Amino acid sequence: MNKGLAQWHEIMRSSDTKALFDLIHPDCVFWSPVVHTPQVGRDITFAYLSAATDVLSEGFEYTREIISGDHAVLEFTTTVDGIFVNGVDIITFSDNKILEFKVMVRPLKAINAVHGQMGEMLEKLKAASATH
Amino acid sequence: MNKGLAQWHEIMRSSDTKALFDLIHPDCVFWSPVVHTPQVGRDITFAYLSAATDVLSEGFEYTREIISGDHAVLEFTTTVDGIFVNGVDIITFSDNKILEFKVMVRPLKAINAVHGQMGEMLEKLKAASATH
Repeated sequence: MNKGLAQWHEIMRSSDTKALFDLIHPDCVFWSPVVHTPQVGRDITFAYLSAATDVLSEGFEYTREIISGDHAVLEFTTTVDGIFVNGVDIITFSDNKILEFKVMVRPLKAINAVHGQMGEMLEKLKAASATH
Repeated sequence: MNKGLAQWHEIMRSSDTKALFDLIHPDCVFWSPVVHTPQVGRDITFAYLSAATDVLSEGFEYTREIISGDHAVLEFTTTVDGIFVNGVDIITFSDNKILEFKVMVRPLKAINAVHGQMGEMLEKLKAASATH
């Protein structure tokens, strides 16, 4: 396992927001499961990841890892508003920093539930951005 | 690249339905991006993959592969009804046969477009199942 991925797992356990910020490459791009447009930069990626890990935390569990070089596909299951969510975090590392983070979820009910939580997430985004 | 994956790519080029059927393990499980319930068995997996490759074919292109052992994550872009679709085929091989096939797509508009095509897909499923 590469060092960046090991750090990501450690942060998922510890919820250490400073370590999360430090793990994100300054040029990181975040791709949401809901929105088409990429979110560019460390600050916005940090804000999305902070909010998402909070909203998706209930029962969150990684179920499968497919890793090749600097690319990691981490499959997970969780629930949002009682709705079962199955998804993947597709992470690209560069020098053990997160350079790209893309999330996809299934089934349809799950993406609708995540979309329904976007309002709450955006509030958390504002709170997170206020701390940086 | 494992032999099963090489065959999958060849079938995507040739649209050889017999070769596709032969590549699917008898105990294969298909997971749709839209529906929660798994589709179990070679016949139903063949029907879904035949219909899906038809519905999603306009501008379909694999953009990234993350492969580890018998697991392959193939990222693609395509359009459905003029809507941009970004997705992944997550394929598990066993003895070079497809044992599991899971699809996820983003963003929200894309999964809604795919869902909107399900009626057409189901008609194709019936047509495909009539040939086997």
